[in-house]
Amino acid sequence: MIINPIGTSIYDKADYEYFKQKAAKDTDIEIVSLKKGPEFITSFESEVEICPEILNILKTKIYDAAIINCFANPCIDAAKEVSDKIVIGPGEAALYLSLLLGDHISIISPDDKDVPQFMINVRKMGIEKRVNIVKSINIPVKALNKDEKITKKAIIEEATVTVKKDGADVVVLGCTGMAYIADQLKDKIPVPLIEPAAAALKVAELLFSLNIKQSKYLIYRL
Amino acid sequence: MIINPIGTSIYDKADYEYFKQKAAKDTDIEIVSLKKGPEFITSFESEVEICPEILNILKTKIYDAAIINCFANPCIDAAKEVSDKIVIGPGEAALYLSLLLGDHISIISPDDKDVPQFMINVRKMGIEKRVNIVKSINIPVKALNKDEKITKKAIIEEATVTVKKDGADVVVLGCTGMAYIADQLKDKIPVPLIEPAAAALKVAELLFSLNIKQSKYLIYRL
Amino acid sequence: MIINPIGTSIYDKADYEYFKQKAAKDTDIEIVSLKKGPEFITSFESEVEICPEILNILKTKIYDAAIINCFANPCIDAAKEVSDKIVIGPGEAALYLSLLLGDHISIISPDDKDVPQFMINVRKMGIEKRVNIVKSINIPVKALNKDEKITKKAIIEEATVTVKKDGADVVVLGCTGMAYIADQLKDKIPVPLIEPAAAALKVAELLFSLNIKQSKYLIYRL
Amino acid sequence: MIINPIGTSIYDKADYEYFKQKAAKDTDIEIVSLKKGPEFITSFESEVEICPEILNILKTKIYDAAIINCFANPCIDAAKEVSDKIVIGPGEAALYLSLLLGDHISIISPDDKDVPQFMINVRKMGIEKRVNIVKSINIPVKALNKDEKITKKAIIEEATVTVKKDGADVVVLGCTGMAYIADQLKDKIPVPLIEPAAAALKVAELLFSLNIKQSKYLIYRL
Amino acid sequence: MIINPIGTSIYDKADYEYFKQKAAKDTDIEIVSLKKGPEFITSFESEVEICPEILNILKTKIYDAAIINCFANPCIDAAKEVSDKIVIGPGEAALYLSLLLGDHISIISPDDKDVPQFMINVRKMGIEKRVNIVKSINIPVKALNKDEKITKKAIIEEATVTVKKDGADVVVLGCTGMAYIADQLKDKIPVPLIEPAAAALKVAELLFSLNIKQSKYLIYRL
Amino acid sequence: MIINPIGTSIYDKADYEYFKQKAAKDTDIEIVSLKKGPEFITSFESEVEICPEILNILKTKIYDAAIINCFANPCIDAAKEVSDKIVIGPGEAALYLSLLLGDHISIISPDDKDVPQFMINVRKMGIEKRVNIVKSINIPVKALNKDEKITKKAIIEEATVTVKKDGADVVVLGCTGMAYIADQLKDKIPVPLIEPAAAALKVAELLFSLNIKQSKYLIYRL
Repeated sequence: MIINPIGTSIYDKADYEYFKQKAAKDTDIEIVSLKKGPEFITSFESEVEICPEILNILKTKIYDAAIINCFANPCIDAAKEVSDKIVIGPGEAALYLSLLLGDHISIISPDDKDVPQFMINVRKMGIEKRVNIVKSINIPVKALNKDEKITKKAIIEEATVTVKKDGADVVVLGCTGMAYIADQLKDKIPVPLIEPAAAALKVAELLFSLNIKQSKYLIYRL
Repeated sequence: MIINPIGTSIYDKADYEYFKQKAAKDTDIEIVSLKKGPEFITSFESEVEICPEILNILKTKIYDAAIINCFANPCIDAAKEVSDKIVIGPGEAALYLSLLLGDHISIISPDDKDVPQFMINVRKMGIEKRVNIVKSINIPVKALNKDEKITKKAIIEEATVTVKKDGADVVVLGCTGMAYIADQLKDKIPVPLIEPAAAALKVAELLFSLNIKQSKYLIYRL
Repeated sequence: MIINPIGTSIYDKADYEYFKQKAAKDTDIEIVSLKKGPEFITSFESEVEICPEILNILKTKIYDAAIINCFANPCIDAAKEVSDKIVIGPGEAALYLSLLLGDHISIISPDDKDVPQFMINVRKMGIEKRVNIVKSINIPVKALNKDEKITKKAIIEEATVTVKKDGADVVVLGCTGMAYIADQLKDKIPVPLIEPAAAALKVAELLFSLNIKQSKYLIYRL
Repeated sequence: MIINPIGTSIYDKADYEYFKQKAAKDTDIEIVSLKKGPEFITSFESEVEICPEILNILKTKIYDAAIINCFANPCIDAAKEVSDKIVIGPGEAALYLSLLLGDHISIISPDDKDVPQFMINVRKMGIEKRVNIVKSINIPVKALNKDEKITKKAIIEEATVTVKKDGADVVVLGCTGMAYIADQLKDKIPVPLIEPAAAALKVAELLFSLNIKQSKYLIYRL
Repeated sequence: MIINPIGTSIYDKADYEYFKQKAAKDTDIEIVSLKKGPEFITSFESEVEICPEILNILKTKIYDAAIINCFANPCIDAAKEVSDKIVIGPGEAALYLSLLLGDHISIISPDDKDVPQFMINVRKMGIEKRVNIVKSINIPVKALNKDEKITKKAIIEEATVTVKKDGADVVVLGCTGMAYIADQLKDKIPVPLIEPAAAALKVAELLFSLNIKQSKYLIYRL
Repeated sequence: MIINPIGTSIYDKADYEYFKQKAAKDTDIEIVSLKKGPEFITSFESEVEICPEILNILKTKIYDAAIINCFANPCIDAAKEVSDKIVIGPGEAALYLSLLLGDHISIISPDDKDVPQFMINVRKMGIEKRVNIVKSINIPVKALNKDEKITKKAIIEEATVTVKKDGADVVVLGCTGMAYIADQLKDKIPVPLIEPAAAALKVAELLFSLNIKQSKYLIYRL
């Protein structure tokens, strides 16, 4: 189950196609979007707005694994707490995975306001020794799809800068809204590029196949 | 303005007395509790439940400075974002203050489930070099006031252990629900003891007198 | 391809069964052991002995993804460098995966000599904020299979201590030689238990399905 | 009591005015300067020179709280040790306070020689995850007041650079000699600006009102 | 030149013998003690008292390299600043050297008040990942020589505990007053034991032979 | 004994001269190069190739102290493990020594591929708070001696940049192949310059004179 944590269902169909294409054959994909809520997650406030309905979905729906489809990992701790199934955030899946592929990881975020928030998330995860650059393309989330060409160009430019200047050897896309163009970017960037929505899907499949889920002891105990 | 982030007003009066007694003469105290919500904040889920109403209060009420009266600092980032007045959490106020008083800080938390959450908060704050012990008295928040004697005894015992064994030279109470007994504990503990609700009040007064509030640039930009 | 980095093929068959059972249906498993080399990897010296042949295998064999089947990740950097296919170590796969499941990770290692080595590996990975306990059951690798009952009992005991005393909420087995008993341990330990050989297999499948491999820029450039 | 840790009393009057204006109504201000000592604190050596007389003042004078009025926190540990009253340094007060206001803190120091010293102090405080930029305006302390316009312009320029380029969301002035121009700078800088002398004063009032002082256990035990 | 940073010359002769015995043949040893000052360095205050005279000695005496003979490294930064010759502290020499010999370093200090001070010094040095245990034998410096047998027994006991329980693989003596018994302890402790006075002497010889001294750029620029 | 970890003896004579000149009078120098192996150590793979023969030399030759003469410290842990004599790597000797001389250390490496490897080594050593800049002159090791003038100019340029821009106050040469020009560079760089081969030699002499060698407990236990 993919929870699109936004108050619109207009992306549900395209998301279904994207996840279905990336999923293993025997994985069923269900996209759930919110009845109410902002169209984009671009602030701490928008995260607060969407979390109650997300928890409600996690508590009432039937699923084997759930993904809250936003790089910022909104209410991920509460989600792991209320659910006794696998719950994954694209941000965490992509970043932990990136650690396997190189030494020095950079995130390409849409907006400069994301930079401090993502650094706080990285510090919370305790991986700031490895992931210590967050770049911004200065295109707000809602404008990402306006002109795909501009967005792609901006990502390639920032990625090139962070690889050449900062010595990044892996690049992580900092927004699940960049998913649709990710495959077109891979050849243009000289290091591995991780798309977080697909990363979350595959990690969810992995945990399901290993029959492991988040700890229900102490931290996520209900 | 003190926001009691719980769905009951039964503590409002006692809280008013406590804050009034600790406040500067020219500080007006207003206690606001929630219309709806859990009686205690004891999980990530309970934090999610209360946050929308907290943000709403911050956006509609008139105040110079607001305190979200819970040590766990629920939705503190969103609160600092939506408000253009001073917003403070007791957890952050108490912990940053503690760094001035000694080298090695311990938190005494009610429940062992709090231990990992508080450690994550400390890591998020980036002060884990100094605050690296969280002790639990294993009395859930809702039972803290049942038998004050037992609670006091348990806090004194844990504080003594962390001072003698871990070498803590400052102790921070890990729940604003311990406020009423804090003054009775001070003589029983050989190191400075910080009560977070009073700490937040005084820090709010301090920032107001210096005419400083949280950065509205990047991170808390609306 | 699974490289058993030891100079004996006596485990190849059992390993084949284990990996086959854990693998996705369309994953072909090939076990390769060394012509020459120590029977167990229990020292830095034994890692040095096996590495030239491992690199040779990686450079001459045909495979989509390779796992060097030892928790200590011997010559993992050289392996990722010489190969232009996916190369994974069980230690790194298990530890990065564990970060998704809880906050405080403990490793259960066979021997107390492993403790400093694993701590160095964790520091090299830059995840020492989260993985900071290595426990030892004081049974050398070569004795792990002598009496399975004793080994299982020792692991359960150490895991219970690290969960109750250190507050670990995830436990990682610190030797791929513990793979065969891992499934029998899961019910006896109150937190998620990660078996590194299976973790490496599933992560290799994941990376293959996403068509990503280690960075060949800078660090692993040949 | 404000200890001006320099061998001249020419700043005492202006300092009295400054602190009096920032103080709470019921706070008495006393400025004490040294009989002997350098005119400015610009080296480790100058700190050594002034410390014996500072400790002597702390041991013989009557006061409720003392501030050693220099950002570099000279002999702050010895001062907290010999005194059984509140002792505060402007550097520590300003930096710990800044952590409440944003995520990424920059210090603007007078001289490039201050940069490594302030980084060492920050590391000693254990807050280098948050405070990791020290900028210099390359105007030695003794020249700060020569041409106020130049000093102000230089601070605004460095602050703007650190905000735009380094992503700082709070700026701390790295010298109490910048106090007199601080209020004129606030409007010119897009993030909160902390003046350390005033910060120390208000923190001293705060601790006094809470009846807390530095730990006299272990570290500051006499 | 060895500066005994205490106001008594009674140890000068024994110190001369000790250093002479450890020195290279062509190294001249000169012991200088202070005219005024405490008999032992046991507090931050005592460090403040001795520093002006130490700097004076460094500025007026003729020498190739100077050692301030105290593990706590009193006024080491000021000393390196005022002198254009090699200046070394036993604490820093011993700790940086210890990093070469094992992974996990413990310090055995005389008194429990030393524990937080030494941890601050270690943090200032930025080596807290490796040196993270300070043990105390609870014998104040002035009593170390009272009954050598008791002191030796206490050191051996604490060292054994830190090796067996904390997994330390190197032990550093945390007081130059333990120098005379160091050679008798070596056989009783299963890991390398570093005596800081001798370490400082040999490091001074090393730097002299390489013709390197502390940086006079930025940090130690006068 | 100096082990030149390369499959050619053409540098042995020049190395003998260099070490002899730097050595104490009573130190005997023996240069040993490998029978087989790459001409230069420029990859993880080349480190794997040379290690078995290095361990063999350490186990069969007679010596008091051995240096594996490469900045990257190839198989240093295995070397310390198999030998019961002193074993030192130039990289570790130079870096730990540099910590005594300034606060902020930069490494000048030959090739940009070295940058991530050296950062990993620094993190493994746990000194990344102090050593956090690795610069590259973009001249591969094999070309270092082609035109000494170009190499010297490139090192001076990078060193000047890292001193002026990054605030480095000590510079460490990141390749023992730069040894022959080191003495000619010292006057051109405004901060102490450490040449790792000489550093290793002097540290080996130091440890020998103190009769200390690496811990044979836990980590390097055979």
